[in-house]
Amino acid sequence: MYYLGIDLGGTNISVGLVDEDGKIICKSSIPTLAKRSCESILKDMAQHCLEVLKKCNVAINEVKSIGVGSPGKCITDKKVIVYACNIDDFNNTAIEPEIRKYIDLPVYLENDANCAAIGESVCGASKGCKNSIAITLGTGVGGGVIIDGKVLTGFNYGGGEVGHHVIVSGGEKCSCGRRGCWEAYVSATALIRQAKIEAIRNPKSKLNTDEEVTAKFVFDMADEGDETAQNIIEQYLEYLADGFGNMINIFQPEIIVVGGGIGAQGEKILQPIRENLSKKVYAGNLETKIVQAQLGNDAGIIGAAFLGKLDK
Amino acid sequence: MYYLGIDLGGTNISVGLVDEDGKIICKSSIPTLAKRSCESILKDMAQHCLEVLKKCNVAINEVKSIGVGSPGKCITDKKVIVYACNIDDFNNTAIEPEIRKYIDLPVYLENDANCAAIGESVCGASKGCKNSIAITLGTGVGGGVIIDGKVLTGFNYGGGEVGHHVIVSGGEKCSCGRRGCWEAYVSATALIRQAKIEAIRNPKSKLNTDEEVTAKFVFDMADEGDETAQNIIEQYLEYLADGFGNMINIFQPEIIVVGGGIGAQGEKILQPIRENLSKKVYAGNLETKIVQAQLGNDAGIIGAAFLGKLDK
Repeated sequence: MYYLGIDLGGTNISVGLVDEDGKIICKSSIPTLAKRSCESILKDMAQHCLEVLKKCNVAINEVKSIGVGSPGKCITDKKVIVYACNIDDFNNTAIEPEIRKYIDLPVYLENDANCAAIGESVCGASKGCKNSIAITLGTGVGGGVIIDGKVLTGFNYGGGEVGHHVIVSGGEKCSCGRRGCWEAYVSATALIRQAKIEAIRNPKSKLNTDEEVTAKFVFDMADEGDETAQNIIEQYLEYLADGFGNMINIFQPEIIVVGGGIGAQGEKILQPIRENLSKKVYAGNLETKIVQAQLGNDAGIIGAAFLGKLDK
Repeated sequence: MYYLGIDLGGTNISVGLVDEDGKIICKSSIPTLAKRSCESILKDMAQHCLEVLKKCNVAINEVKSIGVGSPGKCITDKKVIVYACNIDDFNNTAIEPEIRKYIDLPVYLENDANCAAIGESVCGASKGCKNSIAITLGTGVGGGVIIDGKVLTGFNYGGGEVGHHVIVSGGEKCSCGRRGCWEAYVSATALIRQAKIEAIRNPKSKLNTDEEVTAKFVFDMADEGDETAQNIIEQYLEYLADGFGNMINIFQPEIIVVGGGIGAQGEKILQPIRENLSKKVYAGNLETKIVQAQLGNDAGIIGAAFLGKLDK
């Protein structure tokens, strides 16, 4: 049996056909064109599924279901997108009836960060672990929490927003409106903000550049020996460790999987965090593994596809 | 059918006989005498259960099980107390064989804060809610998290330590060794520390007293119009709201139940927290109820007793 997975993003709609082992047989993307109506977007999602099936020569009766990973809040059991970040027209939209007009398969729905967590736990870095957390360090900080093999959604489907827990009371303003959230300290956006501030304070630092300052650039300048960049990274890792320690004391997951642009730094960030935490977590033993994500953007497609497979 | 519940504390062992509805039919306490051997303590626990049964005229075949709530870490499915805070001799101790020497009933084991959360969810403030958190604001800050009706333990039984998540990166030293934990800002200990510091800074404040400074005293002085005490309480409530907001964004529980000495302040602390959070939680709606605990110390006994009832 096969499973269709759709990663619905503000920029692209990515569709993948996934086999029983979580392997992507075929994938393809189209632009979301996020300003149009949700009916139009859902029609394109469904029709692109049909095209992917055609491309792989797989008949519709060989496919069990379509899973959709959506940014923002979803009422998963009713297949309703409450809102989708950066895609304006979704507003308490029931997606199943619209999709089934074009491709008659059962539809599953889940938040995209939760899909990524499922993907990694099905066939990625947290494979085989029943208690895991996937953290995405990108423009924002996303999180998906899996407890006893099930996604943590909370009673109102808004749970697992680990990027939006305060680690500096009264601190930097966060995109969510609160002050001092973890995201406001460990997202790529936060690292770039800090680099720009410190570049002004330290006119001789290599962080003063005509190029665009990216999170990778800050890491690169630290590698090249720039002291200002090194200090920023050191403080950044401290904030990162604070949040990881919090996740461990709260959840005691078997494993934390770190993805996103900054996650791509791999051991350069993970090893210092492990050292920092080995003395700091409650009762003093770091038993949680902290590892790099393995599936990249595919995690979301695979996780979405597996919503249908995991449903009993 | 009846259920025996034991709240094992550093000072007292409290035993209660609980009916199907979670009502305590009879309860009784004996001193723990925490310095003695774990065998001796377990023997007393078992024999006191027999005495409670005798007192209520209930036969052993009318009782399904004995549940034990223990401070510190437990391997619940093996009924092993890894360590019990303030009771030194428990050290990877399997409690069931020892207890059954004296009273032959199935034994269940869980962390005491988790038992309190179960108790409140069975017949207290969070009755009927499948997703709840119980927070105890006492000398420390305890927490029990219930997700889909099950206690969150994490893969290594150490989960749910919500008091030990950092809300002020690099802040006040916590009892656990980290810096800036929620407990270091919202426990009674933390409030008293802050009152003593501010009393020195503000010699005219009523917080300068020959009596023992308690958390209640600080609240009382604020009520009496002492400006220093009022400022301390205002900041205290800000820290409290930070942590509650974090719990909501992470778990989205249906309800948070607040107990312990400071929880007894009731609406005086709960209403300002709700107002603070109504604008601050992710996506801007406070859908989580925040209420006072109802069962006091009985929550632990009832929750322990119900371990046997809830086991399927």
